[in-house]
Amino acid sequence: MSPAASAFVSSSSSFTLFPLTSSSSSSTSKTRILVANRETLLRLPSFSCSHKRPNPIIRSALSIEKETPETGRPHTFLRQSDDDDTGLSSSSSSVRARFEKMIRDAQDSVCEAIEAVDGTATFKEDVWSRPGGGGGISRVLQDGTVWEKAGVNVSVVYGVMPPEAYRAAKAAPDDQKKPGPVPFFAAGISSVLHPKNPFAPTLHFNYRYFETDAPEDAPGAPRQWWFGGGTDLTPAYIFTEDVKHFHLVQKNACDKFDPTFYPRFKKWCDDYFYIKHRGERRGLGGIFFDDLNDYDQEMLLSFATECANSVVPAYIPIIEKRKDLTFTDQHKAWQQLRRGRYVEFNLVYDRGTTFGLKTGGRIESILVSLPLTARWEYDHQPEEGSEEWKLLDACINPKEWI
Amino acid sequence: MSPAASAFVSSSSSFTLFPLTSSSSSSTSKTRILVANRETLLRLPSFSCSHKRPNPIIRSALSIEKETPETGRPHTFLRQSDDDDTGLSSSSSSVRARFEKMIRDAQDSVCEAIEAVDGTATFKEDVWSRPGGGGGISRVLQDGTVWEKAGVNVSVVYGVMPPEAYRAAKAAPDDQKKPGPVPFFAAGISSVLHPKNPFAPTLHFNYRYFETDAPEDAPGAPRQWWFGGGTDLTPAYIFTEDVKHFHLVQKNACDKFDPTFYPRFKKWCDDYFYIKHRGERRGLGGIFFDDLNDYDQEMLLSFATECANSVVPAYIPIIEKRKDLTFTDQHKAWQQLRRGRYVEFNLVYDRGTTFGLKTGGRIESILVSLPLTARWEYDHQPEEGSEEWKLLDACINPKEWI
Repeated sequence: MSPAASAFVSSSSSFTLFPLTSSSSSSTSKTRILVANRETLLRLPSFSCSHKRPNPIIRSALSIEKETPETGRPHTFLRQSDDDDTGLSSSSSSVRARFEKMIRDAQDSVCEAIEAVDGTATFKEDVWSRPGGGGGISRVLQDGTVWEKAGVNVSVVYGVMPPEAYRAAKAAPDDQKKPGPVPFFAAGISSVLHPKNPFAPTLHFNYRYFETDAPEDAPGAPRQWWFGGGTDLTPAYIFTEDVKHFHLVQKNACDKFDPTFYPRFKKWCDDYFYIKHRGERRGLGGIFFDDLNDYDQEMLLSFATECANSVVPAYIPIIEKRKDLTFTDQHKAWQQLRRGRYVEFNLVYDRGTTFGLKTGGRIESILVSLPLTARWEYDHQPEEGSEEWKLLDACINPKEWI
Repeated sequence: MSPAASAFVSSSSSFTLFPLTSSSSSSTSKTRILVANRETLLRLPSFSCSHKRPNPIIRSALSIEKETPETGRPHTFLRQSDDDDTGLSSSSSSVRARFEKMIRDAQDSVCEAIEAVDGTATFKEDVWSRPGGGGGISRVLQDGTVWEKAGVNVSVVYGVMPPEAYRAAKAAPDDQKKPGPVPFFAAGISSVLHPKNPFAPTLHFNYRYFETDAPEDAPGAPRQWWFGGGTDLTPAYIFTEDVKHFHLVQKNACDKFDPTFYPRFKKWCDDYFYIKHRGERRGLGGIFFDDLNDYDQEMLLSFATECANSVVPAYIPIIEKRKDLTFTDQHKAWQQLRRGRYVEFNLVYDRGTTFGLKTGGRIESILVSLPLTARWEYDHQPEEGSEEWKLLDACINPKEWI
């Protein structure tokens, strides 16, 4: 393995930072700073997305060190100052540590569940770190009994963002004073699981936490933080009970924290995973949220933890029921066509993927989300009323499943 | 078939008009107007490529009518005034007519050659037109004996571009006078041919001609025109004699017109089909040119004709030699991985495809360039010195084949 890293953007473990020129369900008018694990981003003011010439401000200011492969998993990817629970650590550095522990535990438990169901294949692990702190663990299982390709990645990134981005997000008290570059911290888990059986759905999930330090030269400027993430299901065929179960687990996780979460995040998910040129969603949705900081920080950490812990109970029972169903070549071909749509969404629309590819992240980690195989037929139209047509219809017209 | 057309951009027959914010080998500093068939574009001044919000100037100004399906092929897609060889037609309207004839003849002869070699499959044809003139013919052969998927499309487009774009390209004599919208004409042929046998290479070619009228309110402003196109080869395995033959036919076509053409257009091709995030070219190149108007117009029409006529002799002999070679599952898997790269290039970098997808062209025509099937393996590295490694090496380090 030869990890390739850019000098200014890390996409290792498919964790990328990138500019956004428009947004999905979040507000579009205000310029915000965000961080991204595939669906997210660093939104910069007045950024013009020239495809071949990355903004020189970003190139120079978003400096993240090159990663190096490691032979074993470290106890933590945090810098020592962040890992000290008793000393100088503030409550937010403690959130860093607890979020890292949460995503690493989630990686372990999801991988364990996948291996147990698959029965034969095991995850291949790549660990990497950066000299100044941060790193990641990529795990990929390929060509198993149940899963064609399954990737579960965690990463921790320390970086520096341009002060312009921070100021645009929230003006420093003394607007005349020019703040310096803003250090940031980002951590996330990202996963895509593509089964072999066309009746067994693909799952994607991704949870992330972001923090900026206060700018060094603007002591009054506040530290910022937010959470993002989601879990969504992409079947080739609809089993209503499966989709209901999946959405119900998401709703239950949401309802423990706020009754508005599920309806909001369900719609946000439908809006985000939209393949505009097809007029279709990638799949049957789930939940998606981003830029979440207008709640108690501890509450949101618990919410993200609850969501990550819901992945196995939401998904594995569906796989258990569908993994051994008999299928025909036609079923398989339809699954492959839907995998083609997955590729279209990820390469054309997914913000983390497209920006990561264009700015030089670790390609194998970014593209682990792509299926092992995919198919494109000219002008394929499922017969009206067929099972294939029903799936397509539900992707075109998102439904309320519960 | 239900062709979907946008109000302002036509991608039918994968013919798209779109803005370019950077260029490959052509000069980047001057703002030019170009038209595009997949690789080309309408380059507009000060265009910021917000992925979700197309420039309102373009949306309002690049008005092209919605296409309607036709049951038969018309004699011509030209407006009657352009089709009149004796009356009011100028020499450049005559170029329109002769270019249309050339690309339709090329479509016929390439499709005939493909069907003859395939032996079993035939092309499915979709014809469409626009009330105010223009239209196209899409032909797709799928799941043949030799070809997995083969698309050969021609199109003719009449449209209107914003005067700002024209003025930026070439200032009108009286700069104080505000010119009106500039009518333009564009015609092109575009084709991608994906064979089944992993030893038989994929071919892509595309030739296009573009004209603007003089702006109506600026009588002194000149009419503009240019040619673009190219032919390139994408094998999964290198047979040196095949690649030499292919490049030699391209060179011979070029050398009949200008000895500088082949070396310039060969390099331009290597530069254009670059998958930046992989550091690889899509294939082993050929020729690519764009924005060509600094030669005699008749000479360039002859050159484009020569190039289009060279497709069959450059490609078919290679297919004849390789279509029946015995191959293993491993050979097929490698071909599928390279097809994955083809998808990556087309969805992430190809200017016509990406713009067409985001602005609402006829999706099936745009995406006919994608292979029937493709594959992505995590962290696949061919063994050094293997045949797969040799292909990869030649994609990373473009070679001089003749």
